[in-house]
Amino acid sequence: MFYRSLLLPDLRMTLDANDVEGIRAFCETLHPAVVAEVIDELEPAELWKVLVTCAPDLQAEIFGFLELRRQIQVVEVADRKTLSKLIEQMAPDDRVDVLEMLDEEMVESLLPLIAQAERADIRKLLSYPDGSAGSIMTTEYASLPEEITVSEALDQLRIQAPDSETIYYIYILDERRRLDGMVSLRELIQAKRASKLADIMHRDVISVRVDDDEEFVARELARYDFLAIPVVDNQHRLVGIVTLDDALDVLEEEATEDAQMQAAIQPLDESYMSTPFLVLARKRGVWLVILLAAAFLTAWVMQDYEELQSNYVWMVWFIPLVLASGGNAGSQSATLIIREMATTDMDGRDKYFILMRELRMALVLGACLMTLSFGIAICMVALSEAIVVAVTVLLMVIFGTSAGATLPIIFKRLGMDPAMMSNPLIAALVDVLGVIIYFKTALAILGPVAKVID
Amino acid sequence: MFYRSLLLPDLRMTLDANDVEGIRAFCETLHPAVVAEVIDELEPAELWKVLVTCAPDLQAEIFGFLELRRQIQVVEVADRKTLSKLIEQMAPDDRVDVLEMLDEEMVESLLPLIAQAERADIRKLLSYPDGSAGSIMTTEYASLPEEITVSEALDQLRIQAPDSETIYYIYILDERRRLDGMVSLRELIQAKRASKLADIMHRDVISVRVDDDEEFVARELARYDFLAIPVVDNQHRLVGIVTLDDALDVLEEEATEDAQMQAAIQPLDESYMSTPFLVLARKRGVWLVILLAAAFLTAWVMQDYEELQSNYVWMVWFIPLVLASGGNAGSQSATLIIREMATTDMDGRDKYFILMRELRMALVLGACLMTLSFGIAICMVALSEAIVVAVTVLLMVIFGTSAGATLPIIFKRLGMDPAMMSNPLIAALVDVLGVIIYFKTALAILGPVAKVID
Repeated sequence: MFYRSLLLPDLRMTLDANDVEGIRAFCETLHPAVVAEVIDELEPAELWKVLVTCAPDLQAEIFGFLELRRQIQVVEVADRKTLSKLIEQMAPDDRVDVLEMLDEEMVESLLPLIAQAERADIRKLLSYPDGSAGSIMTTEYASLPEEITVSEALDQLRIQAPDSETIYYIYILDERRRLDGMVSLRELIQAKRASKLADIMHRDVISVRVDDDEEFVARELARYDFLAIPVVDNQHRLVGIVTLDDALDVLEEEATEDAQMQAAIQPLDESYMSTPFLVLARKRGVWLVILLAAAFLTAWVMQDYEELQSNYVWMVWFIPLVLASGGNAGSQSATLIIREMATTDMDGRDKYFILMRELRMALVLGACLMTLSFGIAICMVALSEAIVVAVTVLLMVIFGTSAGATLPIIFKRLGMDPAMMSNPLIAALVDVLGVIIYFKTALAILGPVAKVID
Repeated sequence: MFYRSLLLPDLRMTLDANDVEGIRAFCETLHPAVVAEVIDELEPAELWKVLVTCAPDLQAEIFGFLELRRQIQVVEVADRKTLSKLIEQMAPDDRVDVLEMLDEEMVESLLPLIAQAERADIRKLLSYPDGSAGSIMTTEYASLPEEITVSEALDQLRIQAPDSETIYYIYILDERRRLDGMVSLRELIQAKRASKLADIMHRDVISVRVDDDEEFVARELARYDFLAIPVVDNQHRLVGIVTLDDALDVLEEEATEDAQMQAAIQPLDESYMSTPFLVLARKRGVWLVILLAAAFLTAWVMQDYEELQSNYVWMVWFIPLVLASGGNAGSQSATLIIREMATTDMDGRDKYFILMRELRMALVLGACLMTLSFGIAICMVALSEAIVVAVTVLLMVIFGTSAGATLPIIFKRLGMDPAMMSNPLIAALVDVLGVIIYFKTALAILGPVAKVID
């Protein structure tokens, strides 16, 4: 943001003057991430005009820092020939992300222009399902055989370096490309130059499977503080690596998705700013309609208690209060448990511990709120009426917390994302039963309405 | 979880048999993160018994993978002498995190046992305020002068490697330790052995200030896909580095904190499982009490409309519905904007764009919900009554969305965390004004109650 406002006017002048040298100098001087941020403000055609001034590898680097939605827009105005060279230079995982978003015709017209080896790689990566390790991994890893010496390894790495996403972890493969071990460049640098890799490598390499969930892979990387984790197929052959920066993107996306689901929004595929208006409206509207339907259920249930409402008008005043008590307690519980499930593994014992703890929590918090409610309500209504409000608050906190704690766990058990059990949805369910709890409590404490009328 | 259940029984047997060799073999064979996960199940004293069987550097590594709360428990049962050696071996950023949590007496009794150089480093790092770059950085970076050759540099790195958090980024300092440039180990490996570092290094190094916010630092790292970012003081002297794995932890913590704040929970310092019951009760209870107070305000406002409530009992049925419409629309809006503010920089123009967009969104979604509400309400009540419900739903969606969109932006402007504007808090504010909107709408459409009674 800071860079953009400072550098954009300069770039615009250079562009208007058609100063190709000036544009190239601009791209070569700044960090590619900064260039991407500045040119993000331009129209796609102008943006492409900037990119074509650079060498293909720099083009690819800058292009890689653009948001996916911008990348697609640029692809649509780019000439196929230059574009195919740019795609060749992109990181395998990034270019597959772009190609996946293009229509098939476009992809089929681009592929023949791309070098044979890269093309095969693209077809392979495109075949992995979305959300799997295969879909986020890169195929550009450094690998060596175990029988060479450290000194030979360092020479080989000089050759592999330009084409590897990282050379800091080196994977040791057998003749059938099965993952036999790994050694870090740090260890290589420290080792005696004459040692064989077989003598210094780690043999029990922690790896993930190509069909593992991307979020699981990201958490494994984070757990071990790795820079990259190897991805193997079911014959334990190395097929790719996932690097820490990609893992970070996955975890950030998951956190954003969970936050959206928690607020009853269907997860957006892109950032809020990049999501088209109508897509955004649909992803919010769907849930608002579901929640509205649930609210009508509450209205419908309330009809049954018409007599109570018209005879005890004071009860009406506290309807929002008792419902909110349950909903708020439920939101707290659900949010804590959903985030805990998202960031850690949980076994049956953990779940039991959580449910017991939430029950105790509901009793403690419910008792506090009950006392407070009684203290305030007694200033507004009669003693027996204040008791109705206070007891209902206690029951609502217990009921809300129980719903908030159990529903995400049940959702997970059913194989669904627990974050789908959004806070507004919990509140809506609490509302329906909440009005019943409220009126039944009143009937229990005050006796049937008929008596009052008599 | 998987490892723990498999390996724990084995370890317990070895422990019961007092088989020191067996315990040491267990620690040396597995990845330190796995060992930490398994021994996390043991009592602190037992856990310490396992650790002392290993060499100090392995002790420190395993210890570093434990959760902070466990680390503190272990420190309390550990003998000072062994503990001081373990602390010497820990990464500077990790050990400061532990020492910060201990009481001062404990720290003062430990420090004299720690080597002079490490002690000075600890005192320095302890002086940086919580949440700053200084508080998360490590002081163990690799640095070299610019006048040496690549070949000399590689030799020097062999010596520096054991004491550096990473040797993959090498920082080039002048004689006053000012940051002049950087070179990656990848570039070093590829460069001609006789080149001088001055000729191959990058000069415009992107760095952060020691007092920058940790979240800003983490985002910078993520933005540039760096493995580490240098931290400088106000004389541009290199004082530390922040590595990508630490950045990832910061971003994960921030996401968890924001999720908690969004659900009206004061952010927990530790995980849900590690937070003591009473602390958890306090952090939830505070907000529940505030929200209860807000709900009493709603009840108090409702008293003013007693006549409407007793004459139009049907109005009561739709109270939860109209309030939920506003609250849900507001939650969606607030959540999207808070997460967008957390993950990107936003300038004035972006904010204006967002507010205009949310207003349009409110009209579109409001119109949909209004139509639907009318369609369902008409089956339950008379025409004019259904119109009251439908119009109120429209107004509530507009009002809720506006509150959800503007309040976080205002909070940010006031220098507070926008995530503090939690969804339940927005719902509570929407409730208070919502009942007024509802009853005023009814009066406007149906005319004063007096007429009906007449």
